[in-house]
Amino acid sequence: MNIITLTSDFGLMDPFAGMMKGVIYSINNEVKIVDISHGVDSQDIFWASFITNASYRYFPCLTIHVVVVDPGVGSARKAILVKASGHYFIGPDNGVLSSVITGDSNSVIYEITDDRYFLRSAGNTFHGRDIFAPVAAWLSKGCDPANFGHVTTDYVSIDIPEPLLQNGMLTGEIIYIDRFGNLFTNLDYKDIDKQIKAGSASTPFIRLNQNELLLKKHYAEAGIAETAAVINSFGLIEIYTFMGNAAIKTGAKKGDTVSLCFK
Amino acid sequence: MNIITLTSDFGLMDPFAGMMKGVIYSINNEVKIVDISHGVDSQDIFWASFITNASYRYFPCLTIHVVVVDPGVGSARKAILVKASGHYFIGPDNGVLSSVITGDSNSVIYEITDDRYFLRSAGNTFHGRDIFAPVAAWLSKGCDPANFGHVTTDYVSIDIPEPLLQNGMLTGEIIYIDRFGNLFTNLDYKDIDKQIKAGSASTPFIRLNQNELLLKKHYAEAGIAETAAVINSFGLIEIYTFMGNAAIKTGAKKGDTVSLCFK
Amino acid sequence: MNIITLTSDFGLMDPFAGMMKGVIYSINNEVKIVDISHGVDSQDIFWASFITNASYRYFPCLTIHVVVVDPGVGSARKAILVKASGHYFIGPDNGVLSSVITGDSNSVIYEITDDRYFLRSAGNTFHGRDIFAPVAAWLSKGCDPANFGHVTTDYVSIDIPEPLLQNGMLTGEIIYIDRFGNLFTNLDYKDIDKQIKAGSASTPFIRLNQNELLLKKHYAEAGIAETAAVINSFGLIEIYTFMGNAAIKTGAKKGDTVSLCFK
Repeated sequence: MNIITLTSDFGLMDPFAGMMKGVIYSINNEVKIVDISHGVDSQDIFWASFITNASYRYFPCLTIHVVVVDPGVGSARKAILVKASGHYFIGPDNGVLSSVITGDSNSVIYEITDDRYFLRSAGNTFHGRDIFAPVAAWLSKGCDPANFGHVTTDYVSIDIPEPLLQNGMLTGEIIYIDRFGNLFTNLDYKDIDKQIKAGSASTPFIRLNQNELLLKKHYAEAGIAETAAVINSFGLIEIYTFMGNAAIKTGAKKGDTVSLCFK
Repeated sequence: MNIITLTSDFGLMDPFAGMMKGVIYSINNEVKIVDISHGVDSQDIFWASFITNASYRYFPCLTIHVVVVDPGVGSARKAILVKASGHYFIGPDNGVLSSVITGDSNSVIYEITDDRYFLRSAGNTFHGRDIFAPVAAWLSKGCDPANFGHVTTDYVSIDIPEPLLQNGMLTGEIIYIDRFGNLFTNLDYKDIDKQIKAGSASTPFIRLNQNELLLKKHYAEAGIAETAAVINSFGLIEIYTFMGNAAIKTGAKKGDTVSLCFK
Repeated sequence: MNIITLTSDFGLMDPFAGMMKGVIYSINNEVKIVDISHGVDSQDIFWASFITNASYRYFPCLTIHVVVVDPGVGSARKAILVKASGHYFIGPDNGVLSSVITGDSNSVIYEITDDRYFLRSAGNTFHGRDIFAPVAAWLSKGCDPANFGHVTTDYVSIDIPEPLLQNGMLTGEIIYIDRFGNLFTNLDYKDIDKQIKAGSASTPFIRLNQNELLLKKHYAEAGIAETAAVINSFGLIEIYTFMGNAAIKTGAKKGDTVSLCFK
């Protein structure tokens, strides 16, 4: 257990990520700390959950992932430590960790309650520094998770829609639009493989509203201003406009239906 | 002495923080380097001083804090190394280190003059790389501070106003407005405790211009668009508007009077 | 070989640099990783090449520099590993590494082809994570570069104009305009030294269009709104307007002629 990752919406001007690292190194100066992103949009629990779930698997087993997107800090919301898929996750119980919890049927959730591990602090606005960082550091030194609190099965979940197989056609939706106007769908590359193995050896394409979009191998395979689909860095089918903005070009919105078809 | 922190106004596009890390690791490849912030507004000496003073205490003793907000780089301004409160601080003598100097009555200031420790460089515009980084690295290897130059008691100070007790009421002012419009005051949480211990067991509130603001335990305790006060992550009383912009809502400006009252 | 540096245009919101670090630490958890910049403008191959060439020399010998500005990712462009000037460089063969290749007449280029070292991945849009990061990590563990592919002498080069000596006067051009409006020239500080040694002991100045600009020792030596020249942090002659924007003030554009004169 020698890596702690940090994900937050702290932005760039403030010293908050630095303070968390100081707290961690004060407890365990042998650990490595890796920033995943401190540029999550303020309070964007979905995106924090998404990148946590997409990133953890690239780290060694037993890495500790701390996620501090926490609009309810100081309120009654719980703090939790999750063991799932061979990794540890620490953060507020507001949905940022629900994807990793549901991603492993054997995941174990601990409610963090033992304030002997917390920093004594005047304010009540920065649990990243005062609770999550020291708990992560003590965990990285080998403390058993049960030291921090009791096991619970109760947690806050955010809704991530699953694709449906309807009339032999896999139908999903747009779950995120990034700042370049790229449309992320909930259709995973594995869905294509499964459909292909299920007998359809024909060419896959994506239907979005009235458009039929080809599935490209890489971005530059599309012509300039052409809208197409690609399997993106997260393993998801993404709709993009080469050298353009697919959200503007297609008028598509979050929640719009996207289908994987074959011809 | 195995951590060096970096604070600067270098921003994000340029390779300057990376160059400093290369210089440090070339001298001492055992040290850990932690970024506090490279997003300080260009030439904002007050903010650099403020976050340095707020952050260092979360790091282990003998951490070396390098602060490079240095509009006068290359001019006659001195370079200094400060030992204060069990930590080391290195930067230009322009006020960025005056808070940590005044925060410890036993602080010792060395003027950095021995150019045997400096990088030979063509330009005269990047002392962060050419002077502060190598001095920090040699210090982290165990060099005595006296090697870099002589002790001095002369230094440039920036004015940080102190709260005043007037007519039994503690009066401070707004010292900073952050990019969300939150108003930082110079009233510390300890001031409230002291006032309470001094006999007033009644409810504290904050007076700003004609407004009486309640002191909340955390941000979300206020209603949407309500303006209130909270003890923020720096331990200071901060005036905020929940889901809004307190600077716009109240019209308050830097230097405006803020009082801690009880009723 | 214990440092890997990263330079990219990933920006701040996305977890891509973090994923690369996870991949590297999964292979070699003894290495240090240093961010040079993830704020390169999207697809700005010139700037990525420039800062790589300007930064590597501040790191210890045998540092591994990974540069991921890669608009053609997934297309037929090659992936290369370069040994030059005592350092290693890894990236796409699109010109980002051509400055370091031409900077050492003994540089050796390997085309990276052996996919046993690659991450198996669904998409084809993130070679930073799937190819460059694991190759850098295996190289840092001591793998010989020849393991990753064969030596080649073929590579994509970007044009960086060289100054010319005309009529006894050194003439270069503006090669970059930064976000503050500072004008970078391709005149190196060594050019001034050479000219001075060549017999001209008189005062150097810079001619840009109709303007004669003095060469200052540091920025603040100019008056407010004065346009002048300075040797910048990259060792280049830079034209700046003190507390202003030289690009707007002079109307100069990339490619405009700049001469080093003496009087």
